[in-house]
Amino acid sequence: MSLESCVDVLIIGAGPAGLMCANALAMAGIDVRIIERRPTKLTVGQADGIQSRTIESYGLAGRLIREGNQVYMSAFYGPNERGEIECTRRERLVTPPTACFPFIITLHQGAIESILLDSMSRHGVKMDQPVAPSAIEVSEDTEELANMSSYPVKVTLERLDAVGDATKTESVRAKFVIGADGAHSWVRKALNIAMEGEHTDAIWGVIDMIPDTDFPDIRKLTKIQSTNGTCMIIPREDEKVRLYIQLSEADVPFDPSTGRVDKSRMRPEKLFEVVRKMFRPFELRTSGFEWWTIYIVGQRIASSYSVRERVFIAGDACHTHSPKAGQGMNASMNDSHNLAWKLAQVLRGWASPSLLKTYELERRQFAQDLITFDKEYSVLFSGKPRTGDNPNGLSHENFVRVSEKFGSLITGIGVQYAPSSLVNVKHQGCASNLVIGQRMLPQIFVRAADALPIEIQDMLPADVRFKILIFTGILTDTQISNVNSLAMQLGKPSSFLQKYTKHGNVWSLFDIITIVAGRKEEANFLDVPPLFRQHWSKVLLDDVDVTQRRGGCGYETFGIDPTAITFVVVRPDGYVGMVAPSPALDDVDSYFSSFLIPRGLFSS
Amino acid sequence: MSLESCVDVLIIGAGPAGLMCANALAMAGIDVRIIERRPTKLTVGQADGIQSRTIESYGLAGRLIREGNQVYMSAFYGPNERGEIECTRRERLVTPPTACFPFIITLHQGAIESILLDSMSRHGVKMDQPVAPSAIEVSEDTEELANMSSYPVKVTLERLDAVGDATKTESVRAKFVIGADGAHSWVRKALNIAMEGEHTDAIWGVIDMIPDTDFPDIRKLTKIQSTNGTCMIIPREDEKVRLYIQLSEADVPFDPSTGRVDKSRMRPEKLFEVVRKMFRPFELRTSGFEWWTIYIVGQRIASSYSVRERVFIAGDACHTHSPKAGQGMNASMNDSHNLAWKLAQVLRGWASPSLLKTYELERRQFAQDLITFDKEYSVLFSGKPRTGDNPNGLSHENFVRVSEKFGSLITGIGVQYAPSSLVNVKHQGCASNLVIGQRMLPQIFVRAADALPIEIQDMLPADVRFKILIFTGILTDTQISNVNSLAMQLGKPSSFLQKYTKHGNVWSLFDIITIVAGRKEEANFLDVPPLFRQHWSKVLLDDVDVTQRRGGCGYETFGIDPTAITFVVVRPDGYVGMVAPSPALDDVDSYFSSFLIPRGLFSS
Repeated sequence: MSLESCVDVLIIGAGPAGLMCANALAMAGIDVRIIERRPTKLTVGQADGIQSRTIESYGLAGRLIREGNQVYMSAFYGPNERGEIECTRRERLVTPPTACFPFIITLHQGAIESILLDSMSRHGVKMDQPVAPSAIEVSEDTEELANMSSYPVKVTLERLDAVGDATKTESVRAKFVIGADGAHSWVRKALNIAMEGEHTDAIWGVIDMIPDTDFPDIRKLTKIQSTNGTCMIIPREDEKVRLYIQLSEADVPFDPSTGRVDKSRMRPEKLFEVVRKMFRPFELRTSGFEWWTIYIVGQRIASSYSVRERVFIAGDACHTHSPKAGQGMNASMNDSHNLAWKLAQVLRGWASPSLLKTYELERRQFAQDLITFDKEYSVLFSGKPRTGDNPNGLSHENFVRVSEKFGSLITGIGVQYAPSSLVNVKHQGCASNLVIGQRMLPQIFVRAADALPIEIQDMLPADVRFKILIFTGILTDTQISNVNSLAMQLGKPSSFLQKYTKHGNVWSLFDIITIVAGRKEEANFLDVPPLFRQHWSKVLLDDVDVTQRRGGCGYETFGIDPTAITFVVVRPDGYVGMVAPSPALDDVDSYFSSFLIPRGLFSS
Repeated sequence: MSLESCVDVLIIGAGPAGLMCANALAMAGIDVRIIERRPTKLTVGQADGIQSRTIESYGLAGRLIREGNQVYMSAFYGPNERGEIECTRRERLVTPPTACFPFIITLHQGAIESILLDSMSRHGVKMDQPVAPSAIEVSEDTEELANMSSYPVKVTLERLDAVGDATKTESVRAKFVIGADGAHSWVRKALNIAMEGEHTDAIWGVIDMIPDTDFPDIRKLTKIQSTNGTCMIIPREDEKVRLYIQLSEADVPFDPSTGRVDKSRMRPEKLFEVVRKMFRPFELRTSGFEWWTIYIVGQRIASSYSVRERVFIAGDACHTHSPKAGQGMNASMNDSHNLAWKLAQVLRGWASPSLLKTYELERRQFAQDLITFDKEYSVLFSGKPRTGDNPNGLSHENFVRVSEKFGSLITGIGVQYAPSSLVNVKHQGCASNLVIGQRMLPQIFVRAADALPIEIQDMLPADVRFKILIFTGILTDTQISNVNSLAMQLGKPSSFLQKYTKHGNVWSLFDIITIVAGRKEEANFLDVPPLFRQHWSKVLLDDVDVTQRRGGCGYETFGIDPTAITFVVVRPDGYVGMVAPSPALDDVDSYFSSFLIPRGLFSS
């Protein structure tokens, strides 16, 4: 007996990449299904670091902050002349000045997955487990592939907990399939996508535990370079701490038949013994280990992220690197964040399928940058520390240099997507500091109607809509009349605002936020034409808040002329897609026409 | 048939005063019961303004902010030469510079009650309704009254929804009874407590509705003085707005038999008609009224707040005044916030019953100050506006003057309790800006172990414990040794830390927070003696956070010498009870000995 079913998007694997995608699609009302081979939820271990940009991105900040631990500072320890470690430097951990959250959150992966599962289930989608794929087939029929109503991917699923006569096998036809099934991705292997790159010879151990110690920096992200080896401390939620421990071949049992590390012959007590030596003269004790592992670092990237833009892989399935900089989970979540809104737009019939090509373009470059960073960073851990005997060894300055060089990459703040149909850099000059292809800069404005200070990023949720920010400049009488004529132009059926939306319902595809250069004591938000204030909450002022401590100077910070009218187009994922002066309205039209599908006013 | 029962605290009335008290006692694990005459929850209308200090106080800020509307700005409108209103001024609403929340939250009373009900029910206490008292009796037996194990108050309750043969009447014996049953308090009347003061002749109408208007300041707290009368706009949660409307006798139907306003013959359409004239030249429309009322302002105060310190009244039962400044609910919540921790300490056997006398001392003075304010404020609403014909009329400057004079009172920020056993001003000089008897000033410190910026008020929850803040100053070697000897002194059985606590469990009655003058890059929190760091989270640094935007200069702000060691005693309700330099340890001992009951180390 065999079941058959259809679904718009089938996601294979419910780690952070899969759940982020499933949740985003569930929120967008897309028909999505997510399956997972594991029979139960993850409760300990695995990834645990949430970078600054990841906190900003998904409207999850509140719960992440409540449940997780915030890490603000890093500390460095090196060996002194007695061969004992001592602190050489303490400094802020997250360096990009525009980060909304000047910290990393640490929280075990299961808790992060729960946040996504809870959100997803509020939108009616539940995880299906334990279920694993056993076969996948993608149509090669050009016509079928070009037709967005078709289901060209066929996947066979096995229910792993079926007993007796229960149906075990199911045949699913999907419009799209996402392989978010980790570093050993079944999807990737089944579709013969190669991993390019190599394994390093660095061996690491990881322990999660509650420490009892006289080490004063146990609640900071601390790198210890001792004469007994290198380790890293990651303070975690509750009283927990994670330790990354550099191991030598002598510390690790190998399987003689495969030449690989043999985890079954390793014990956490052994790891702990190694790291205790690195802590000298400080004491380190614990009453038990919550989770532990050992691994050899690989730095590899998939040769392709997709098969005919109908199957995509995301997360660890696409790229592997060392986990020490807390990048894996963040890269994975951001992969599927990038993909989900594009899929939603294509499935809704708004955007052309060509939009999906930008997924690999944007995310593969990021993965390559990450591996470049990882190579430089790993040297810092495997090298010997600077001592009297080894004056050319590594010191905290080496860490600082690498952190400064890659700070904006590893926090996610400086991720830069290359020019494409979605990233149009033509008019960069009219908002010189809003780098097109980077995430929209945070900035506090005050709401015109009630002077509520509001972070602009909070007005840019990932709701599949493009956000059109209209910077009206200072509303002199002349400028009011210019803004009114612009509104008239945008009201015409040929304008991008009207052309792609059904029955003139602009707000299904776009949100408009108007930002006036003016003071809260004087501005009248009713001066803004109705098209630019769908609701009173959509008009903001570039002014300080009532305490004069927050906000102000937004035009200056963004590099926008307060005597002009300027468009800023923010993509559904929060990245700046284009900026343009109001006379270049045609260019904004062209931007959208390169990937949106126009529809007649009366089409359905 | 009649039931009999016993309870430590019986609360009559489940409005904000009663629920605040019940929730505080439930959180403290006290045996408490709360009854309410109304059969169902309030869903619209009534009080709706939560002042800045009330947001700070009770750990409710998160949900209040999520559910309510924030009002940052006020606006004033007066008549121009054409007799139409125009804006004369817009300015910040909450003026005290130390307010943590520079806004008022507006939210209907039922939502605020729900927050308290939810918290209470998480601690196992549910509201009992519809139940009303029919008799109350307080013992006059001195011995019984002096014995804290006795139940000297007897209340008869009637279950209002009992049908048929069900038991309707219950006889409850209570250690304490709280009458939180509103302006027409049954408890107050039953115990013959007089209300002193008078009714004014000001008549007001109130409407809650969703407006449709071209009035630009509808989302600000706006006072309109028109030639057609005075009104006030309170923007509310969602799209709602409340209007307070000054009425003339001609607008209002009176009951000829009583001479009182006859609400049954009034309609909201009539109120709306009155206020629309005041809005001219602006349009005001609505599709309906959510709630409305009319009332005559009374300014009265109860002659006593208690009967033999076994029955207390709180909230509107003690004081009535006009609702325009949003004071009633706040005063009520703060009344019972003041009372609850004192009851809990007495019931736990920690504090002497004499502590309860400070309730009336502290809260009656506040009510009197409020009525003084209300009288000055009401004049501003009933007077005629300044116009060409009436150059001596009222203008926005009159409002500004009164707001400045009373700003710290009406926000709750400047509430000042008089000297008493709980408020000892002797050493004020050693923390000159922490006014003893006022709420502890907010200040951001950074946590020594992990550099988390933390608001000191968030470390002072109303958990019935006194907070001992130890400002160690700069930890030079000499100072470290001074701090160590202080810890030794405080470790002795004769010190206040040990004398009042069972089996040396300091943390049942006290929490200690240590604040070091030092930089996060250098300080080692392990330099602080173990008694002063029960947990690593209890040691703070007076430093800026990693962004250098928050915190710093706490010693200077508080007026504390960074070369000395200074105690700051914060009461369980967040008010500064005493400050003292470390050599005056004996005075701190005396402070606590004036109301705490010492116990042998081995008593149970």
